[in-house]
Amino acid sequence: MADAAEREAMARALELAARGPVGANPQVGAVILSPDGEVLAEGWHRGAGTAHAEVDALSKLPPGRARGATAVVTLEPCNHTGRTGPCAVALLDAGIARVVYALDDPNAVSSGGAERLRAAGVSVESGVDADRVRELLDGWLTVQRLGRPFVTVKWAQSLDGRAAAPDGTSQWITGPAARADVHRRRAEADAIVVGTGTVLADDPALTARRPDGTLYENQPLPVVLGDRWVPEDAALRRHPRQLLQRSGNDLPAVLAELRTLGAQRVFVEGGPTIASAFVRDGLVDEVLAYIAPTLIGSGPDGTDRPALGRLGVDTITQQHRLVVSSVETIGDDLLITAHPATEGAP
Amino acid sequence: MADAAEREAMARALELAARGPVGANPQVGAVILSPDGEVLAEGWHRGAGTAHAEVDALSKLPPGRARGATAVVTLEPCNHTGRTGPCAVALLDAGIARVVYALDDPNAVSSGGAERLRAAGVSVESGVDADRVRELLDGWLTVQRLGRPFVTVKWAQSLDGRAAAPDGTSQWITGPAARADVHRRRAEADAIVVGTGTVLADDPALTARRPDGTLYENQPLPVVLGDRWVPEDAALRRHPRQLLQRSGNDLPAVLAELRTLGAQRVFVEGGPTIASAFVRDGLVDEVLAYIAPTLIGSGPDGTDRPALGRLGVDTITQQHRLVVSSVETIGDDLLITAHPATEGAP
Repeated sequence: MADAAEREAMARALELAARGPVGANPQVGAVILSPDGEVLAEGWHRGAGTAHAEVDALSKLPPGRARGATAVVTLEPCNHTGRTGPCAVALLDAGIARVVYALDDPNAVSSGGAERLRAAGVSVESGVDADRVRELLDGWLTVQRLGRPFVTVKWAQSLDGRAAAPDGTSQWITGPAARADVHRRRAEADAIVVGTGTVLADDPALTARRPDGTLYENQPLPVVLGDRWVPEDAALRRHPRQLLQRSGNDLPAVLAELRTLGAQRVFVEGGPTIASAFVRDGLVDEVLAYIAPTLIGSGPDGTDRPALGRLGVDTITQQHRLVVSSVETIGDDLLITAHPATEGAP
Repeated sequence: MADAAEREAMARALELAARGPVGANPQVGAVILSPDGEVLAEGWHRGAGTAHAEVDALSKLPPGRARGATAVVTLEPCNHTGRTGPCAVALLDAGIARVVYALDDPNAVSSGGAERLRAAGVSVESGVDADRVRELLDGWLTVQRLGRPFVTVKWAQSLDGRAAAPDGTSQWITGPAARADVHRRRAEADAIVVGTGTVLADDPALTARRPDGTLYENQPLPVVLGDRWVPEDAALRRHPRQLLQRSGNDLPAVLAELRTLGAQRVFVEGGPTIASAFVRDGLVDEVLAYIAPTLIGSGPDGTDRPALGRLGVDTITQQHRLVVSSVETIGDDLLITAHPATEGAP
């Protein structure tokens, strides 16, 4: 059982963890306590390529000062040599006698630190304040579980599933409240993905804006998929962040790259070709369908502008079943939030 | 002001009215009161071609017995010679001194009875118990207002607006609860309309069935639109009511015929061609869209099975805007109930 001083140190470690950046690496905090519960040092992780929290804390102490001390850490000390050495070894080298941590490392490559420490005779306690740490690391833990960023695919459609009229006009199918909702959600994402078709047709700014037009603090990375050239005068070229363009033929590779860049939440805005590709490839974790109460239908010569195109379904047994988690009224429109009935294979 | 005996007589007239059939003509009841409030006779309307309620009541009295009496009627006495003469004249001829009625006749052709009676010196009082009579005649009043039966168009679709997979398979997109809901609503309609395409593809029974397979008491008239032959062995041929088949090129004419046949509520079940035609022609009063939480998309060679096809919309300003009145969860599915934003022109 962790004692009062250790619990207090864990609360402090959680505060320290939150100072670090959200990204490819977890936010981790550490506090070194003397055997009588005095705080000897604090540390936190400042992002990929920098010292881990435990090492950051230990580095503030003169050699030998941590001998017999207790390390309180929000995440299980790693057992992996990356750009830095294993923290388990650093703790052993420093003579730490006890380690208290909150969450087990979910990553197979770096886990095993607790076992290594125990094997070396260190007293190890886990699970302290785990819920609060899990909350802080929610996005990162999801990325570890999925092996890629969490993907939300959003589209707007008429009740009958069209994204535009036969002649391509679509402003505005959904109303201002739905559009404001989309911008708010953009601001919660780390990257926004669109296809070159959408860029060339709509010239979107892809910024996350408040209803008054001002920018939200967080501007997700704009990502364009497709081989066509984004014109020099495209609104996207004036986005506060430089756009990333990839061919889009290999969506898992794009997601892997975005993960490396620290993206935990990817917001796929379409259009139909890109949204359909993510559904077809089973790379959708959340669907946001904004439904305008309107009927559009198909064109006189068979032209049609469905919100989703080819999803790889030929016969009904191959349909992509969803589970609806909520239906909200937003202005005159409906927002249906759903997720694949079988995770990872919508 | 109507006195107590007149109010009591109106309540009785309402009971009598409800004995008549629901159909092309209104349900009407009548009570003849002596000057001291004694009930002299009762009558009600038994449907098109039969005596109106007032005449039915008067016919039960010997000549002269109604002189100076009060007629209490649920609907304004008519002023129109159809298959029967004007009730206003019949009342005058009988020497009725006072008429108390609930609702004004909404029909321009037959109205004016109250004015004619007043002009002849009869005391006329209207609006007595109007709300209860309006409730009884709701369906008929709607038909008078619209000039045709009330049209509900129902379809089932995937979230992305498809009625079937590219190969035409569709069983089951929506679940058993949604199908039970459709059958319950069928039983509330007077006619069900489908196209020959649906008949030939799905061979529907078009009966209104309970979940246990038994028939509801009311079985709406099955109506098939289209020129193709309904096979002798079609399930529809075993429907308890003989089907009505029309070409479907003139939907207003079909609705006019159904009105003549007494239909107040028409349930259009599709498929896509028929549902789209009603939307395109602005003949929709209510939309029921059953949405299954599933994504289907289009086929490999561009084949597509949208729930709605050509709606006459070429550009976005021509879209058929709706107003959503409710969103319900039915089993795993959603039911969106909506009506045209501009009545009669969805």
